[in-house]
Amino acid sequence: MNLVASESISRLATLHCSACGTSYSAFELQRVSACCSLPLVAGYDLHEPLSRDVIDQADSSMWRYGALLPLLHEKNKVTLGEGMTPMLHLPRLAARHELSSLLLKDEGQNPTGSFKARGLGMAISKAKELGVDGCIIPTAGNAGVAMAAYCARAGLKAVVVMPRHTPQAFKEECYWYGAEVELVDGLISDCGARVRQRNANGALLDISTLKEPYRLEGKKTMGYEIAEQLNWTLPDVLLYPAGGGTGLIGIWKAFQEMKQLGWLAPDVKLPRMVAVQAENCCPLLETYEGRQANCHSYQGSATLANGLAVPHPLGESMMLRVLRESRGTVVGVSDEDMMAGMRDLGKDEGLFVAPEGGAVWMAARHLLATGWLHRDESVLLLNTGSGQKYMENVAGRANG
Amino acid sequence: MNLVASESISRLATLHCSACGTSYSAFELQRVSACCSLPLVAGYDLHEPLSRDVIDQADSSMWRYGALLPLLHEKNKVTLGEGMTPMLHLPRLAARHELSSLLLKDEGQNPTGSFKARGLGMAISKAKELGVDGCIIPTAGNAGVAMAAYCARAGLKAVVVMPRHTPQAFKEECYWYGAEVELVDGLISDCGARVRQRNANGALLDISTLKEPYRLEGKKTMGYEIAEQLNWTLPDVLLYPAGGGTGLIGIWKAFQEMKQLGWLAPDVKLPRMVAVQAENCCPLLETYEGRQANCHSYQGSATLANGLAVPHPLGESMMLRVLRESRGTVVGVSDEDMMAGMRDLGKDEGLFVAPEGGAVWMAARHLLATGWLHRDESVLLLNTGSGQKYMENVAGRANG
Repeated sequence: MNLVASESISRLATLHCSACGTSYSAFELQRVSACCSLPLVAGYDLHEPLSRDVIDQADSSMWRYGALLPLLHEKNKVTLGEGMTPMLHLPRLAARHELSSLLLKDEGQNPTGSFKARGLGMAISKAKELGVDGCIIPTAGNAGVAMAAYCARAGLKAVVVMPRHTPQAFKEECYWYGAEVELVDGLISDCGARVRQRNANGALLDISTLKEPYRLEGKKTMGYEIAEQLNWTLPDVLLYPAGGGTGLIGIWKAFQEMKQLGWLAPDVKLPRMVAVQAENCCPLLETYEGRQANCHSYQGSATLANGLAVPHPLGESMMLRVLRESRGTVVGVSDEDMMAGMRDLGKDEGLFVAPEGGAVWMAARHLLATGWLHRDESVLLLNTGSGQKYMENVAGRANG
Repeated sequence: MNLVASESISRLATLHCSACGTSYSAFELQRVSACCSLPLVAGYDLHEPLSRDVIDQADSSMWRYGALLPLLHEKNKVTLGEGMTPMLHLPRLAARHELSSLLLKDEGQNPTGSFKARGLGMAISKAKELGVDGCIIPTAGNAGVAMAAYCARAGLKAVVVMPRHTPQAFKEECYWYGAEVELVDGLISDCGARVRQRNANGALLDISTLKEPYRLEGKKTMGYEIAEQLNWTLPDVLLYPAGGGTGLIGIWKAFQEMKQLGWLAPDVKLPRMVAVQAENCCPLLETYEGRQANCHSYQGSATLANGLAVPHPLGESMMLRVLRESRGTVVGVSDEDMMAGMRDLGKDEGLFVAPEGGAVWMAARHLLATGWLHRDESVLLLNTGSGQKYMENVAGRANG
């Protein structure tokens, strides 16, 4: 296998520790940083000018940004057509709440029905490129389904470890992809412990959030698409459902890269980033509001939005940095309110969103009510998945 | 409401009866033809040259072909981002079956999880443009879900009539869009009878397959996309799951329009079109093989692929014409084989497809075995939906 970057359109140059900046080779298999045991972040050679013409307009997927992605060789690409999801106006909800501009990016239209397709499509492509035979993942649901799909597509062994209480639809879909599924009593943090125990010999690549550097690179493509779809402008406020937080961190990384590249004009202001959490499991909110030093001892419980049931996110300090740099905030939403948000989006806009999507809309309503968000600001909601896989938990609740 | 076409980019010119050719105004609300009570088909002014540059490359949805679509005014567009679904290579299945080129277009990545989003997005946009207040539909499942979503998005009343045995996921999703759902004992033909009875006063627009001219126009965009995604070439053989048949007819219509426009070079051969049906309900197969004069008295039963449980398709003769003109054929697939096809696509290619998608792949295998399909021919499978909404019926069957 030849991994010389100069043969490739990718500008991938290096990996560095997200805490101390120490550099690591981007051309060998890496996990977390050896220095701090914290996430590694990919860096690109952005000194040579790179115009927006480098975007492959014939490619209706996230791979159109190939120069700014870490895959070196086309032949290793494992794709199901992920990315370039629709950016939709929500005119009826905007009118009802007197908002001047309300948009939703619908990640539910990705392969496997969620935004996880981006991160796992990228991570599994890189796993293939780096010669890995099999992968293992602790998951709240959607990430495991996506990993199972991309591993099947790549011909890699897949082991998915998920909470026993996860809706059956997530488990079943993994079986159809031929993955091995192990169920654990507890939340994703307990699944993570089980993964470490089971994979102590390192035979499989651990694809846990931010424990390898490339899921983040897949997720950042949301940021590139947002700018491109808004004709290289950005909204004033962006609301994102943050569990592990890779999407929030990735979108912000994309904004920084585009600023550096000159793809965003100097007068384009970056959005205030809002992390939306579940009241049942809101470690970031607790840290952000100063009720704990960090999430290490946080006790969370299950929530309808299983993607938000992440009590100990490895990227907590990276998320806090995004909130600080963007002058953003954190909002917690109850399970009941998530369903109210789903009803609004379903009945007024024809969107059957995941509870995470409902949460984000209700967070916007809350921030409008408190005055943090102004009616003349442009607002973008990220819906991370389709409502379908949550049917078991929301059936019968369409009318309250 | 001003419906003068000259203000519009649309080249829509006329409607004509699919049987006798009688013309009708395309600028008034129409249903079936008054002359023959058969489907009306939209015609465009294609005399003025129209280059492929008319395609809006910045639009990653079916609306990029606006000049060849019937919507007159942008403001009436009701969209959830439908279309421009991925065209995927299936290298692992191709290798296993020694096929030189095997592709799948994944319509499961549309809004509401199926190809129905195209037809209903178009039909509801036109209903809005023509001043309709509400719509009613008999459905096997996916079309009803899509109609409910687009009606919610447009602010129109929606009534969905579906077989009682339809998986619960289809009904539930309609509720989340605020639609009224009526359940009927029987198949879609029985639902159609109930729609005629309930809507005898014509208060709602009947959106039954081919009973209004615009679902077909939405479906035909699959044909445009296939050509564009294959760089203006076409596969040798195209396999399509045909229930009501609008997709089959629509794709063929697109190919004819593109020939007329010169978008397809004179030496580009059109594919042999294969209609794939369920053994449990295969009226087209019975007529095609001469065991009945037509489908009018056909008795079908329920099948796992509920979209194929259409015993009396109004467009039967239009489908037969496509098969004749393209030198195609019809294949029937059992419910057991559909699941085997789903397993192949899941485990080898990471695609969790609807039973209709499984059927299409098994039909290709059958045609390979009989020699009708040659290993050196390029083959395109249309998967019409995601497997998610069928979970209730396929759970526990991932391993046979």
